[in-house]
Amino acid sequence: MPHIAMPPELAPGTPGLFQYRPETGRPLGELAEVLLRNPHSLSRGERELIAAYVSVLNDCTFCSSTHSEVSAAQMEGGRTLVDKVINDLDSAPVPPKLKALLAIAGATQRGGHEVTEAMVDTARQAGATDTEIHDTVLIAAAFCMFNRYCDGLAAIVPSDPAAYAGMAQMIINDGYRMCATGH
Amino acid sequence: MPHIAMPPELAPGTPGLFQYRPETGRPLGELAEVLLRNPHSLSRGERELIAAYVSVLNDCTFCSSTHSEVSAAQMEGGRTLVDKVINDLDSAPVPPKLKALLAIAGATQRGGHEVTEAMVDTARQAGATDTEIHDTVLIAAAFCMFNRYCDGLAAIVPSDPAAYAGMAQMIINDGYRMCATGH
Repeated sequence: MPHIAMPPELAPGTPGLFQYRPETGRPLGELAEVLLRNPHSLSRGERELIAAYVSVLNDCTFCSSTHSEVSAAQMEGGRTLVDKVINDLDSAPVPPKLKALLAIAGATQRGGHEVTEAMVDTARQAGATDTEIHDTVLIAAAFCMFNRYCDGLAAIVPSDPAAYAGMAQMIINDGYRMCATGH
Repeated sequence: MPHIAMPPELAPGTPGLFQYRPETGRPLGELAEVLLRNPHSLSRGERELIAAYVSVLNDCTFCSSTHSEVSAAQMEGGRTLVDKVINDLDSAPVPPKLKALLAIAGATQRGGHEVTEAMVDTARQAGATDTEIHDTVLIAAAFCMFNRYCDGLAAIVPSDPAAYAGMAQMIINDGYRMCATGH
């Protein structure tokens, strides 16, 4: 049960919190839209994978289930690849640039000072641009917020996998602005 | 030196990162404005104190220096009170409601699952409303993002205390939208 009184008609998880407080829901939805869906040299599936990876590290069931699903639906390699990354990044069959960016995301999750010059150099040598490094750090940092927001208020976490498949489809079709505000 | 190439005319710290990537800077500035400055039953000084407290826990020099300064300028008790909260929350002379909300913020900083029903009950018994509990968790979660964003990219951290006093005055006068986007 959530720590605050949430009207039962609101969505579960973070989207329900966006709807509960639209003044903050709007900029949060906009931030997710720009980071995860705007045109970018990293694909939507890759950016969602960074979000899912960080959410697993933060042990946030709602966000990790949702963003794994959204990533799997948009990545070559699908669910198998997403699971491999989540279970063991080092051995996962992803290209060096994406692996280096995921390592930066993992360091950001532990704390800002954990991101080292060497990690950034490795990403750059694998072809990462400044915008890709910037956005990787910000996606990871943002999910350190979203995960804490969701679990810190004990937002409702569906147990039925079909619920996450449905939410993923809604995100893929309509995006995060819609998911945050309903329009 | 920042991990990415930042034009030297940009501001130091997080505001410089907002200016570097305005697409994300805009919603981030809007989020800070709504959470820390919009009309609220918690004063601006109290909300800034939550931001400063979490930033100290995350060891983020730029954000803790800035938001301590903004809080001190707007709280009865000023810098002395802010320092007492930062150094030892338990013994700090703040009212029970604010102390309970700061404890929830500290739990959120450690991780979303660390916020317990008992902590929320304590805050509620001290008079906290659902909106105050919601916003405390979200301010704490948001600073887990801002702190990681700032340090994860090794943004420039001024060493001169006068720089933070100047930034605090700019925030108090013009707010976070201006600070993020320059207009």
